[in-house]
Amino acid sequence: MTHTTTIHPRYQETDQMGIIHHSVYPIWYEIGRVEFCDVLGLPFHKIEEKGLRLAILSVHSQFIKSAHFGEVYQLKTNITELSKVRMKFTYDIYNSNHELIHQGYTEVAWLNSALRPVNLQKLYPDIYAIFDSSLSKIR
Amino acid sequence: MTHTTTIHPRYQETDQMGIIHHSVYPIWYEIGRVEFCDVLGLPFHKIEEKGLRLAILSVHSQFIKSAHFGEVYQLKTNITELSKVRMKFTYDIYNSNHELIHQGYTEVAWLNSALRPVNLQKLYPDIYAIFDSSLSKIR
Amino acid sequence: MTHTTTIHPRYQETDQMGIIHHSVYPIWYEIGRVEFCDVLGLPFHKIEEKGLRLAILSVHSQFIKSAHFGEVYQLKTNITELSKVRMKFTYDIYNSNHELIHQGYTEVAWLNSALRPVNLQKLYPDIYAIFDSSLSKIR
Amino acid sequence: MTHTTTIHPRYQETDQMGIIHHSVYPIWYEIGRVEFCDVLGLPFHKIEEKGLRLAILSVHSQFIKSAHFGEVYQLKTNITELSKVRMKFTYDIYNSNHELIHQGYTEVAWLNSALRPVNLQKLYPDIYAIFDSSLSKIR
Repeated sequence: MTHTTTIHPRYQETDQMGIIHHSVYPIWYEIGRVEFCDVLGLPFHKIEEKGLRLAILSVHSQFIKSAHFGEVYQLKTNITELSKVRMKFTYDIYNSNHELIHQGYTEVAWLNSALRPVNLQKLYPDIYAIFDSSLSKIR
Repeated sequence: MTHTTTIHPRYQETDQMGIIHHSVYPIWYEIGRVEFCDVLGLPFHKIEEKGLRLAILSVHSQFIKSAHFGEVYQLKTNITELSKVRMKFTYDIYNSNHELIHQGYTEVAWLNSALRPVNLQKLYPDIYAIFDSSLSKIR
Repeated sequence: MTHTTTIHPRYQETDQMGIIHHSVYPIWYEIGRVEFCDVLGLPFHKIEEKGLRLAILSVHSQFIKSAHFGEVYQLKTNITELSKVRMKFTYDIYNSNHELIHQGYTEVAWLNSALRPVNLQKLYPDIYAIFDSSLSKIR
Repeated sequence: MTHTTTIHPRYQETDQMGIIHHSVYPIWYEIGRVEFCDVLGLPFHKIEEKGLRLAILSVHSQFIKSAHFGEVYQLKTNITELSKVRMKFTYDIYNSNHELIHQGYTEVAWLNSALRPVNLQKLYPDIYAIFDSSLSKIR
């Protein structure tokens, strides 16, 4: 499954180079992840109510072209790796000319509310199955 | 008591007008409040460990001159009102020419960890007394 | 005219009290302003291309109830004052139970690209007329 | 050369997991870079006045332990790669127990004010020489 989010950059997200500041992209990734989980019927705040937390292990960003206020972007989110304890989300951002301007990914691990790692497949096999069915083979 | 914080604006805090974005100032106020409490021997995270939370009731900002990356500013924080349940912090920001470029204030209330209002004077008379002794008469 | 923006708080906008951090609201106001101008046929980036800049003179926020990740809010933006050189935008935020949780306003002035004040009515009478026709009498 | 920055996390940088949100680290990296350049006698805003811009090509973050409000961290910044057109900054963050909690790096390229790539060694051999003399061999 690929989820597409339309991004309207905020004026506050610009910097004095006149572009979207690079620290904003991980925030956009998070919007993509959250919406991806919504579409799967697993809203983040419901996941947190079950006592699960999503820990970020790593974030990677490649900047191809800069983004600007007043433009509209498409953020494409996929899950490209899944194991009992970890997942990898990947992100591709396109401008209105369908040019790829940015790529990123985050590796995440599942924790309990005490922030200890958990085996998602064991603890919540139903949730694991849903993520497994959404897995993309694209990367 | 007046507490002075030296502010070095972050590049990320600029916007495409080439100035510090107006939404940054409440974050600077918070730095002022946190340091003010540190100086009083009441670090925020210790206050939170006691089960107290600081709720923001209002924030007010007046912009006189814009602030810029590469400049250095002095943020002066005072407590100008105190009651059993509320406090008012005021902020004055000066540039390196000692010109006042910004004024603001926040009104805050004390809550317990369930986010219910509490009477600070009753619950923690020692903390109340410390804030009372730091009260400025300047505004 | 009243413009309504649907706000889905970002996880990144939460703080360790479990609520949306108070510094986020001026960013939401800006989204309301930007969309308001879009609806009027005056997109912000087009306004900036004409050499105009919008300077923030003041921001005022009243917090009634806290906002949370996972909830959806309606932000209602109005222009409630207009003169040759200044405008006042007001904001009301409602939760999904139609309860007012927040009110704010910003006073803004029009500048040229050298960040000097301009008389909008004189310089761009057409833009002034559009804002004038959108003026709300509600506050 | 290694430059060390003391980081006092801001309350606003926390999220509802009670940790510093992962999107904050690239902002801390930027503080490290800016101070690194200050120490070299090349303040960023002076570099920008010469018509140079620093473009971010990539950002990479590895999260080992989470960071918290109320704690103090040491951010160690190094330049670990340098060519005529690019540089690599690396970052190591330690907690007050001298444990490494985070590692990151950014790859940057030099641009002119029209945001076109430039050969720094050719255009500003003096600036290039200063960066070259600060190069670390550690990674």
